[in-house]
Amino acid sequence: MRVLVTGGMGYIGSHTCVQMIEAGMTPIIVDNLYNSKETVLERIQNLTGVTPAFYKGDIRDREFLDGVFAENDIDAVIHFAGLKAVGESVEKPLEYYDNNVSGTLVLVEAMRTAGVNAIIFSSSATVYGDPASVPITEDFPTSATNPYGRSKLMVEECLADIQHAYPEMSVTLLRYFNPVGSHKSGTMGEDPQGIPNNLMPFISQVAVGRREFLSVFGDDYPTVDGTGVRDYIHVVDLADGHLAALTHKGREAGLHIYNLGTGNGNSVLQMAKAFEKASGVEVPYKIAPRRAGDIAECWADPAKAKAELNWEAKLTLDDMTQDTWRWQSTNPDGYPDAE
Amino acid sequence: MRVLVTGGMGYIGSHTCVQMIEAGMTPIIVDNLYNSKETVLERIQNLTGVTPAFYKGDIRDREFLDGVFAENDIDAVIHFAGLKAVGESVEKPLEYYDNNVSGTLVLVEAMRTAGVNAIIFSSSATVYGDPASVPITEDFPTSATNPYGRSKLMVEECLADIQHAYPEMSVTLLRYFNPVGSHKSGTMGEDPQGIPNNLMPFISQVAVGRREFLSVFGDDYPTVDGTGVRDYIHVVDLADGHLAALTHKGREAGLHIYNLGTGNGNSVLQMAKAFEKASGVEVPYKIAPRRAGDIAECWADPAKAKAELNWEAKLTLDDMTQDTWRWQSTNPDGYPDAE
Repeated sequence: MRVLVTGGMGYIGSHTCVQMIEAGMTPIIVDNLYNSKETVLERIQNLTGVTPAFYKGDIRDREFLDGVFAENDIDAVIHFAGLKAVGESVEKPLEYYDNNVSGTLVLVEAMRTAGVNAIIFSSSATVYGDPASVPITEDFPTSATNPYGRSKLMVEECLADIQHAYPEMSVTLLRYFNPVGSHKSGTMGEDPQGIPNNLMPFISQVAVGRREFLSVFGDDYPTVDGTGVRDYIHVVDLADGHLAALTHKGREAGLHIYNLGTGNGNSVLQMAKAFEKASGVEVPYKIAPRRAGDIAECWADPAKAKAELNWEAKLTLDDMTQDTWRWQSTNPDGYPDAE
Repeated sequence: MRVLVTGGMGYIGSHTCVQMIEAGMTPIIVDNLYNSKETVLERIQNLTGVTPAFYKGDIRDREFLDGVFAENDIDAVIHFAGLKAVGESVEKPLEYYDNNVSGTLVLVEAMRTAGVNAIIFSSSATVYGDPASVPITEDFPTSATNPYGRSKLMVEECLADIQHAYPEMSVTLLRYFNPVGSHKSGTMGEDPQGIPNNLMPFISQVAVGRREFLSVFGDDYPTVDGTGVRDYIHVVDLADGHLAALTHKGREAGLHIYNLGTGNGNSVLQMAKAFEKASGVEVPYKIAPRRAGDIAECWADPAKAKAELNWEAKLTLDDMTQDTWRWQSTNPDGYPDAE
C-alpha cells in the first residue's frame, strides 16, 4: 500500500512512517519542514533500513501536490500536516486557518484530480470543547475555544460535507487525545521549536536542564490533585492507530470517526512524578494561574476504535515516561540540523 | 474613499457600486464573472456616468490581488465575492469552502500586506441556523445547516479571530436577511444562472413566462398561512446599509456585527400575491414538500444597525415587487452577454 503522508517528518508522522515501513507499507512523505528537520529522514532509515520518498513542499501549493500524485501511484493519504500550537494560533490565526483549512482543501482537490479517495485526518480531542462529562464518546457535541481548535473543527466539517457529496470517498477523522512518548530506540521523539506547548516536552526539557522549572497552570480544578487531567497516549500506540485505520475502515467509502486515547486520565502532577521516577531527576514546578480555554479533565472512551479498528493502546505510563527520557537525555537539543 | 469591492459585478455588489458612486466614493471592482456578466459595468456607467475600475480575476489568486492593491490606494474592502446557492453547496462543498473560506483568507492576507485594515463582509442570516425565536438579534447563537451556511459561519469565525489578533483591523459582518428588488431604473437586477434558488427571481421568471409555476416548499409550517416567512429587504436598502457601515463603524478598529433586515416577515404566498398585484400577471403555484434545512420563520431585529449605523430599511413591499417586475419584464433573460 502506497500512502501519501503529509507532515510525515513531524512527531506523529515520523513514528507512523516507521511503523508503516515495518508493516510493509510504502509511505511517501510531503513536508514543508516548517516545524521539523530533514534529519528525521535519516533516523527513519536507520530504524527501518528504508529511506522513504520525501518531497519538500507545501500542501497549499497545488502544482507541487499534483506533481507528487502524478509521480506516485497513491492508494491513500494520511494528512498530518498542520500548525498545532494553541497559544500561537491566537496570535497568528490567519496562518492557522490558511495552513490547516485552506491547505486541506487544496490537498483534497489534488486527491480528487488524481482519483485518490481515501484520507485519514489528524483531528484532535480539542473538537469536544469543554465536554459535559468524561469519558468522551465520538457522538459528543463539538465546539472550539481557540483558532487552532476551530481550524480542526472546520476541517472536520469540510471533510464530512465533501464525503457526503462524493460518497465514493473514505474520510476518517482520528481524534487524538494527548500524544507523548518517543520511539523506544531513543532516536526519534517530539522536538518542538521554541517554548514547548505540551506538558511532556516541557517536563523533559526541565529534567534535562534546558528549562528551570515546570509551570503548572492551575491547581484548583475539581480533579484528583487540583491539576488538569488528560488522556496521555504513547505516540507508538497512536501511530499504530493509523495503521489499524488503513487496514480496516480507512479505505472503505464513508465517514469514519474514532477517538484515539487510552481511556485513562492522569493529572499534571502525576505525570511529573512519573517522569521523575523514570528519569531519576527531580522536576521542580511552580503553580501558575489557569490558562484561558483549559478544561479540568478530558479522557477518551476508546471502545469504538477497539470494536471497528481492532485497535487499543497497549503501552503504559512507564513506557511513555521512560521512552521520553531516553529520547530527551540522548538528544537534549532535539534533532540536529545535519548528521 | 477608495473601496475595493470583490464580487462588485454581482447582484448586491453592483447596486452598492452605483450608490457608492452617487455618494462620491470610488469603487474598484474585482470579480471573476463566475456568476455575473461584464455588461453590468455598462449599466453602472449608464446610471452614474462613471465607469468604475474593473479587474477580472479571482480572489484566490494572491498575485492578482497584490497587483490590484498595488495599483490602487485602497481605504477599505467590501467583500461580496462568494458562491451562494444552498442546494449547489451540498453537491459541491469543496468549491464552496475553497471560494468562500480560502478565498477570504487570501484576500485578508493581501490586505495585511497592503496595509489595508477595514473589511466589510457579506454574511447572512443563515448563520442563525434555526433560531429559537423571532425577531433575531445579533447576539443569538450561531450554527449552520448546510455547506453554504457553514462557509459563511467559518468566514465569520476566521475574521473574528483575525480581528482579535490584529486589533488595528476593522471587521464588519453584515448579516443579510432576504435581498430582493432591483434598481428603480429597471436596468439592474438579480440575474441568477440556471434555476433560481431564491423566491423572488423564481416568481418573476414565472410571471414573465420563463417558468411554468412556482414551487412552494411546504404549506404546513406554523406561520400565518403555512408557508415559510422571511424578512425580505430591498437591495437598494441593503446597498445603503453598506454605505452606512463605511461611513460609521466600518473603518473603526474592532469587530462590528449587524443584521440588515426590515424587521418584518412575509410569507411565500404573501410575496406571490404582492407580485401579482405589482405585475398584473397571475403567478400559478404548486405546493411541494418541505426542503431539508428550511426553517419556518426568520426576521431581523434591525435596532442595532439603526442605533450604530443610523441606517434602516425604507422601501416597501410594493417597491420590492414593482422594481423586480420592471427589471424582469424589460430584461426577461437577464443581462445580455454584450450590448
